[in-house]
Parts: sequence; C-alpha cells; structure tokens
Amino acid sequence: LVKNRKIVLVSRPIGWPSLENFRMEEEEIPPLSRGQVLVHHRFLSLDPYMRGRMNDGKGYAPPQPLGQVMLGGTAGEVVASRCAAFSEGDTVVGMGGWQEFSVVDGELPGQLRKVDTGLLPLSAYLGVAGMPGITAWYGVRRILTPRSGTTVVVSTAAGAVGSVAGQLARLAGARVVGIAGSPEKCAYVIKELGFDACINHRAHPDAFSLARALADACPDGIDGDFENVGGIILDAVLLRANPFARIALCGMIAGYNGEPIPLATPQLLLLNRMKLEGFLISEHLDLWPEALAELTQLVASGQLRYRETIAEGLDNAPAAFLGLLRGENFGKQLVRI
Amino acid sequence: LVKNRKIVLVSRPIGWPSLENFRMEEEEIPPLSRGQVLVHHRFLSLDPYMRGRMNDGKGYAPPQPLGQVMLGGTAGEVVASRCAAFSEGDTVVGMGGWQEFSVVDGELPGQLRKVDTGLLPLSAYLGVAGMPGITAWYGVRRILTPRSGTTVVVSTAAGAVGSVAGQLARLAGARVVGIAGSPEKCAYVIKELGFDACINHRAHPDAFSLARALADACPDGIDGDFENVGGIILDAVLLRANPFARIALCGMIAGYNGEPIPLATPQLLLLNRMKLEGFLISEHLDLWPEALAELTQLVASGQLRYRETIAEGLDNAPAAFLGLLRGENFGKQLVRI
Repeated sequence: LVKNRKIVLVSRPIGWPSLENFRMEEEEIPPLSRGQVLVHHRFLSLDPYMRGRMNDGKGYAPPQPLGQVMLGGTAGEVVASRCAAFSEGDTVVGMGGWQEFSVVDGELPGQLRKVDTGLLPLSAYLGVAGMPGITAWYGVRRILTPRSGTTVVVSTAAGAVGSVAGQLARLAGARVVGIAGSPEKCAYVIKELGFDACINHRAHPDAFSLARALADACPDGIDGDFENVGGIILDAVLLRANPFARIALCGMIAGYNGEPIPLATPQLLLLNRMKLEGFLISEHLDLWPEALAELTQLVASGQLRYRETIAEGLDNAPAAFLGLLRGENFGKQLVRI
Repeated sequence: LVKNRKIVLVSRPIGWPSLENFRMEEEEIPPLSRGQVLVHHRFLSLDPYMRGRMNDGKGYAPPQPLGQVMLGGTAGEVVASRCAAFSEGDTVVGMGGWQEFSVVDGELPGQLRKVDTGLLPLSAYLGVAGMPGITAWYGVRRILTPRSGTTVVVSTAAGAVGSVAGQLARLAGARVVGIAGSPEKCAYVIKELGFDACINHRAHPDAFSLARALADACPDGIDGDFENVGGIILDAVLLRANPFARIALCGMIAGYNGEPIPLATPQLLLLNRMKLEGFLISEHLDLWPEALAELTQLVASGQLRYRETIAEGLDNAPAAFLGLLRGENFGKQLVRI
C-alpha cells in the first residue's frame, strides 16, 4: 500500500481565506482496480478560481466539499496502471487535486491527458500550454479578435492567463497594454513579454486616476479588454473604451473575497455599443485540442514566453494559494510535490 | 413662400430638461431647388434617445446643435417635389425634425421612405413598423434569440420598443415577463399584448424587492433581458439570470438625466457566463428592409398589437417629450402636427 498526503478543506472562509481553512491528512491508497491508473504528482496548479469553489452556495460549479481533497490541476507520472491506455512512466496532466498521488479511472475520457516532455517541460502543461493558456486563447481569439491597428488591455498581465492573452493579442498585431500590481511586474511584462506598455494599478487610488494612465498608454482608445480583475480596473477601462469595444470577462478577482465591486458607469457599455462576454474555459472543451496545439507550437518556437513561481512541497500549497490571491506570484503559480 | 413653424433647442439641460430648453420659431421656406422635396409633416415621433442628443460632449451621435430644429422622425405627405422619385401626395417617413415642414434632398438614399397607408395607418410607420419596432426586432432576433422553454424579461414593456420586443419574444415561444411603471400599464401588457406577467417596478423600492417579484414571475429564471432602463431594474434581472443568459442593451433611461446608475453585482455576468450587447439600430440599416417587412406583416395580420399616445399640435411637443421621459406615455408617443 502506498501512503498519500492530501490537503482537505476544513472550513469555508468568510472574506479572505487563511491557513486554518486547510488541513493536511494522510491515507493509504488501496490497490488499483481494473481500469485505474495511479499518478504520482510532480506539480500542482494553483488558480484563482479555487477561491470561488471554497464558498458554499451558487457558483458556476458545485462547491468544494468540506473534508475532501482540494480540487486542482496536476501534472505527474504514471507509477502504476491497470488501464491499457496508460503505462508506467507516462507523463500526464489531470485534475488530481492538492495531494501527492491520485487514482484515476483511465477509461473515462478527459480524465488524464498524456503530454510530451520532450517538447515542453512538464510544468508548462499546467500553465502556458494548459488551462490558463487555453483560457487566454479563447478570450483573445474567440471574443476579442484583435488585429493590427486596435488596442487591447489585459489585467493581471504578469499572471498565468494575462501574460498569454497579451502575447497572443500582440502576435495578432494589436497594441497591447498590461495592467499589473508592481513596477517589477510591469517591467517584466514590457521587457520580457513584449507588451507595448504596462500600468501599475497600485499607483492609482481610483478609476479616474487609472483612466488617465490608460489614456496615456492607449492614445487611440481601447478596443478590447481581457478582464481578470473587475472593480476600478474595469471602471477605468470603460472610461477609455472605443465604440464597438469588446470585453472578454474571464475573472473578477477584485471581488473574490466578497468585496463589493459595483460597475460605476455601465451606460458606457450602451454608449459605445460594446459586447461583453463572460466565459468559463471548461465549457469549451471542443476547442482545447486546437488551442493546445497552437500554444505548444508557439512556446516551442519561442514566440510565447512564460514564467513560473514554484512553491516547494505540498505543505506549502495553502500559503502559496493565499499569496496568489494577494498577487504575490509572478507568472504561473505552481507547487512542486 | 410657405411658412414653417419649428421648435429649436435653445439651451442644454443639466439634469431633467424643462420647457425653457425649447423655443418655437417661424421661418419662410424658400422655393425648392432641383432634387428637393417638400414634406408636410402629419406626425412627429418622440423618443428617449433625444434626451442624449440634448447633452454636449461624447455620445454615440453628435449633439443636437443649439438654435437649430430638434431632430426627430416624422411621417407626412409630399406637397411639392422637384425629384423624380417622389410625387405630390406620396406618404413618406423621414427625419424631418420638430417642425411642420421639411425640405429634403430626395436624391440622397435613405432620407425619405415611401410608406403604404393602405396597409397600415401612417403613424404606425413611426412606431411598431418604424424605428422603435426595428429596434425591438434587432434586440430580440439578433441578440436574445428566444425560443420555447426560455424566459425573456422586457423593461418599459408598455412603451414603443418594449411592447414590440415582448410580443416578438412571445411569438418565438418564450415566456415573457414585462416590467412597467403602473398597474394600468401592467394590465395592458398582460391583457392586450399577451405577456405572461408584468411587474410594476414603482411598487419596489430596491433591486432585492424587484428581484423577489421577478423570482415569482420567472420560476425558471431569466434567459434573456431586453433592457431599456438600467439601474435597479438591471440589478434585479442579474440576480435572477440563468447561466448563458443574454442582455440586449438598448437603453438605460434611468440614467438619461445624469442619475448615477452603478451596476451593483457585475460579477453575476461572469458567474453566469452571460453575453451583453449594446446596440444602436441606426447602425444596422442593412437589416431594416427585412425587419420592416416582417413587422408590417405581423401588424397587418393582427399578431402584433400596439398603442399610441398622441399629443395634439407642435406647440405641445416639448411637454409631451418631458412626459415621455417621466413615463407618462402609453405605447408610442407621437405629436400630431
């Protein structure tokens, strides 16, 4: 029998979560049944959507059950298999959760996906060539459809999703302006990711101040907004939006801990005949193969760059997750297990 | 020489407009030049969009110039023509403005459209079979795309646009719930227009109260919202929206006089993966022939009903317009000239 360590949710946060909401548990893994695969996780993905799952009540997915292992994307290695489709040594990604091992029904389609670590490092399949990258791809390609001569704004520009969204918009020929949470992140976004400009939103106390900075950075206005934050960032973007501007509404992290995030001037959506679309990438699984193929090729050819922040050890996952919510990560936040 | 009386804008309102913003003037109409048509107006259309044009500054159209005749849709009769396409006695609609006569360049496409008063009364071509009807048609057919088993909410349900929007959604098989400003309007919307339910928003002091009424009227939630008002009405709709609900954002009259109309919980747009689209019907002229043909047929066959509120005489146009902004009209607000 193999010992597994896992982190479970023990209580639901009111407002900001804390370490006390989580607990490490140990268990023995029973022998595999027919069709099952045992995966040893090497990396756990930490993502903002997890905060929503910690709440009870209405969400776009069922709440994370109390007392059960926290859900999450994982990349690892098959260490035992009773399923013909997977062999020991295969590198795979799946939704293994915050734990060292997972037992997966290998016969169920979509549960595990083999990835080629000869092409990209294993961890990249949780970020730039994984769910966050596909999220960026969908918002840019299917909603914003940027082209030369247009301007796209991307919030959380140094993050896992924003960094890809901005680079994809730039590859499509648009002027791309990032919004990020520190001067260091802005420097990275401009120098390493190639954005045309980046604004440190923490230097702006309100939407009007941020809108003035956007006016400088977007002399021709804003045609597309890849929105990950909401609150005064979205307010400011609306103040500079052009007619027919589009908003890919991917996240509103400004409100994930219960903060009120009213939209100050929704009439600008009408005045500028805008389109806004909220989306959830797990509802567009049909597009994943196309998106993944393109993202993998762009990374492998050096056209798409990324960075990772890696916490060491499963024990550090809760603290790393809290740091992610505070914006302490640079690029994709992972935990090495 | 023919005498013309016209109403000009003499000052821009701050907040609610008043009669003092308008002035009647008289002028002589010079003889027609080649290609020109003289139209004697019988009806003037009054519409909420005119309030926006009275402001200076950024809008989706240039401001109404001070000292010039107020813009507006008109229906009338050709009384003199030096253009081969139009003859004396033709009944036409156009953008003649708040005046008794207009001189139109008949050679310019789209300036005047002949209408068949054998099919519908002349005034109908300013309402149900005119710009307001087409506005409703676009929002319902091109944005909301209702079908059987879905629920559509329509604000200003007794108005020129809302009354058509709701009937079109019902013809498409949807459950249709109106929101209107009096018990009398609600009774009309249900009994004469055939909506499934109607809520008097003036009976509700806040969005939560209105949302409870919507929950009763929409037991399966809301899939489509034809939005003409904004403010707490849109807030309440969002609280009852289903996943993948759509909003056709046509107007936000709650804010037309400068009232703040923040959207309280924009995160519901994300949570429910909604699509919102602001539109301006004059930007979809290519669809007018199709929409007009269908609306005209639906009215002629009795499947689409409408009502008009008619003010008598051009002198009463400003007061009627102020009444429209207060919601005093029932159905399409016209002025008989």
